[in-house]
Amino acid sequence: MIVGKVVGSVVATRKNEKLVGSKFLIVEPYKSMNIKEKMVAVDNVGAGIGEIVLVATGSAARIGLNLDNSPIDAAIVGIVDDAVGLE
Amino acid sequence: MIVGKVVGSVVATRKNEKLVGSKFLIVEPYKSMNIKEKMVAVDNVGAGIGEIVLVATGSAARIGLNLDNSPIDAAIVGIVDDAVGLE
Amino acid sequence: MIVGKVVGSVVATRKNEKLVGSKFLIVEPYKSMNIKEKMVAVDNVGAGIGEIVLVATGSAARIGLNLDNSPIDAAIVGIVDDAVGLE
Amino acid sequence: MIVGKVVGSVVATRKNEKLVGSKFLIVEPYKSMNIKEKMVAVDNVGAGIGEIVLVATGSAARIGLNLDNSPIDAAIVGIVDDAVGLE
Amino acid sequence: MIVGKVVGSVVATRKNEKLVGSKFLIVEPYKSMNIKEKMVAVDNVGAGIGEIVLVATGSAARIGLNLDNSPIDAAIVGIVDDAVGLE
Repeated sequence: MIVGKVVGSVVATRKNEKLVGSKFLIVEPYKSMNIKEKMVAVDNVGAGIGEIVLVATGSAARIGLNLDNSPIDAAIVGIVDDAVGLE
Repeated sequence: MIVGKVVGSVVATRKNEKLVGSKFLIVEPYKSMNIKEKMVAVDNVGAGIGEIVLVATGSAARIGLNLDNSPIDAAIVGIVDDAVGLE
Repeated sequence: MIVGKVVGSVVATRKNEKLVGSKFLIVEPYKSMNIKEKMVAVDNVGAGIGEIVLVATGSAARIGLNLDNSPIDAAIVGIVDDAVGLE
Repeated sequence: MIVGKVVGSVVATRKNEKLVGSKFLIVEPYKSMNIKEKMVAVDNVGAGIGEIVLVATGSAARIGLNLDNSPIDAAIVGIVDDAVGLE
Repeated sequence: MIVGKVVGSVVATRKNEKLVGSKFLIVEPYKSMNIKEKMVAVDNVGAGIGEIVLVATGSAARIGLNLDNSPIDAAIVGIVDDAVGLE
């Protein structure tokens, strides 16, 4: 998983039917993680812009959200309250 | 997922039989996503050259398209209408 | 898998219910592995800050931990006692 | 998927038994894809050195080839006849 | 898959129980593959330090080794006898 900050959102009216109802947020990895690529993740915890979140990627994202058959490869699965080692 | 722009297409007459009928589009990640690698994705939403799209990768691509047994690792699953945070 | 050092931890009170009880540790890949990206991994072996560990990523992480349906994409699956070739 | 050029081949006499009969080709991503890493892919379409091919990676490679239980993570699944946007 | 050289090994006494009996080797990708990251792979073919090997990654590693439920994401699945295009 990675720790990142929610920096935006994406709206797609025309989309795969299994994605209807999903909220797509743009996550920028936390600077000290040394990951430069942003990602679009489906929100699973009610995250909002500016929050620091935990993101799971790959098959873990869709299966962890009980959306086994959806085309989802990244999901916000936690709101980070505190972190040590990322200063 | 990533947000990208459809910049081209690929034609392959000789291919795995499960790919017959699939449309292969070349997607360039949106500049501010900080991803330099382009990808070839199967279209699932009627996307065209120049459109901004949402792409799912990995097993999510084939399973999300109900093409569980096809050799597909990336799929265009949405047309992006609006995005905040990618300016 | 990669060899890395546990350099921190993450606390997330609000999270996917399947993650309740998991310990999230931040792992920095061992320098000579030439991997700059840090990762957040679920601890499976009682690892602590400062320890050198073995991390499995992708579907192997959740399935290897018997947490098949959890949104986990990285897990600490060993404490490294000795290594040759990473000096 | 990626578009690449077949630039070589690999012979391995001692190998996992499920790989017996597979042809391993080295693929260099097409320059404009901005992917520098080469990969070894199992041929599924009778590709030869110098041909431009479509490569699927991850679980899609083995499942798409009906080799669900083989240790294959990349497969050549098409011969590219024409491409727009990769000039 | 990638072609690499076995450059070391890792010993972990305390580990996930499904990893007991596995041999962990450190593989450095062959220079011309343009992959800088090393990886730790489970040996499936009796490879030794200094040998040039074929490595499969992702779910292919554990499933290809009939270790479907083990936290393994990379495996050495062949000893390379000869290669064209990697000079």
